[in-house]
Amino acid sequence: MAREKITVVKVGGAVLESSSLLNKFVKEFVLTGGKKILVHGGGREATRMSERLGIKTEMVEGRRITDADTIEIVTMVYGGGVNKHVVAMLQNAGIDAIGMTGADGAIIRSVKRKPVNGIDYGFVGDVDKVDGAKILRITDMGMTPVIAPLTLGENGELLNTNADTIASGVAMAISRDIDVELVYCFEKPGVLRNPDDDSSVIPIIERKDYRQLVIDGIISGGMIPKIENALKALEGGVKMVRITDFSNFSDSKAGTTVK
Amino acid sequence: MAREKITVVKVGGAVLESSSLLNKFVKEFVLTGGKKILVHGGGREATRMSERLGIKTEMVEGRRITDADTIEIVTMVYGGGVNKHVVAMLQNAGIDAIGMTGADGAIIRSVKRKPVNGIDYGFVGDVDKVDGAKILRITDMGMTPVIAPLTLGENGELLNTNADTIASGVAMAISRDIDVELVYCFEKPGVLRNPDDDSSVIPIIERKDYRQLVIDGIISGGMIPKIENALKALEGGVKMVRITDFSNFSDSKAGTTVK
Repeated sequence: MAREKITVVKVGGAVLESSSLLNKFVKEFVLTGGKKILVHGGGREATRMSERLGIKTEMVEGRRITDADTIEIVTMVYGGGVNKHVVAMLQNAGIDAIGMTGADGAIIRSVKRKPVNGIDYGFVGDVDKVDGAKILRITDMGMTPVIAPLTLGENGELLNTNADTIASGVAMAISRDIDVELVYCFEKPGVLRNPDDDSSVIPIIERKDYRQLVIDGIISGGMIPKIENALKALEGGVKMVRITDFSNFSDSKAGTTVK
Repeated sequence: MAREKITVVKVGGAVLESSSLLNKFVKEFVLTGGKKILVHGGGREATRMSERLGIKTEMVEGRRITDADTIEIVTMVYGGGVNKHVVAMLQNAGIDAIGMTGADGAIIRSVKRKPVNGIDYGFVGDVDKVDGAKILRITDMGMTPVIAPLTLGENGELLNTNADTIASGVAMAISRDIDVELVYCFEKPGVLRNPDDDSSVIPIIERKDYRQLVIDGIISGGMIPKIENALKALEGGVKMVRITDFSNFSDSKAGTTVK
């Protein structure tokens, strides 16, 4: 019997801020055949809401310092504003979406991050256990989980968790009996050899080439954790990882394939 | 074979604003045996967030006028802030809660309310269809749906919907093959004959007595739609409705039983 296939799609960044970009994304998501899981971010929306509430956003190396005020805001923005907006749009497009955080059904448990080099990230959790079996029972019901980047800490508290890591964690957790493709969507057509040239997409990145690409400065900044997540996912049983444009990811040849 | 039993509990008001009251509520919810569904409000939290954002809250006869700014706020507050907070508390108490709005799994579809007597309520929906079968598939998985008062409108938009009506709608939708008890929790020990005397609980209100109690002014204000929801739920197949104190509702004799 052929193994079942599921696509785990992660979307974040500017796409979530704009109705027209989000519409494009939803069209591509609908065009992507078979069972699907969506993981979304929402950092820019959280920053904007923090500003409106007069709460300062502090970032260290791209990670949000999540104090008590901030975890309240990201819970509202990720779990409510962004998540339910995306769910309603998907329902409207004929996809039976169900919004979740890691706390819902306790599908993603995490461990509160301890201070790193003297930096206390606050209410931030690193993925500990993903309940892949429960997620698959939901997809078996014909529903598409839409997962916000919040997880359930050891003391039952909500923790802010990186969406890329959630996506790879979910992909790995369901990959034992299923062929899983993990797709990281963003605003670029893939990993670029030259950041100013959208036609310089690197079609394939192999594990053995990764180090050299970092040394050569071709993979840098926020792309480093993304590729490391991708490589970890492949090691964890995920069949294929792609980093690609949110507006044409249903084309399986688009973007950069990490393998 | 004995019919299965499910308890649908609705909680709102001051309980959701206070961690200590919410803790008491959660303890009672855990003590309530068997399968359960929770429906929550969050109006006070929404009003507070609106104030913080400098957006005016307008109420007409206890109903919130939900303009474009307000639907964004209630989506964040009900679907994110309140819902995920309650879900995490229940998970911490050993209940496998899953937070949902009517849009999630499209479990509650609604119709946008047309202006009533010249008053445009904005993004407010009246419950149209509840997917009882899907809700039961989720409870059959051992999960406890925690439902925020938002529904999916005909054009795929999120709509603000009265939580009492959602509770009775959900209770009716699952009552065909199941014995459903609907419990409305609030800060009073039940329907009081004298609003200033907490010991004046009316233990039973029968349909035939309802009109007279309204005429006598004993049932008035916000209690009228509550009792009408209760009576409608009974007509719709719900086995028992109780209006009672959030802090001892696991005692099946507490409060006012409507029958």
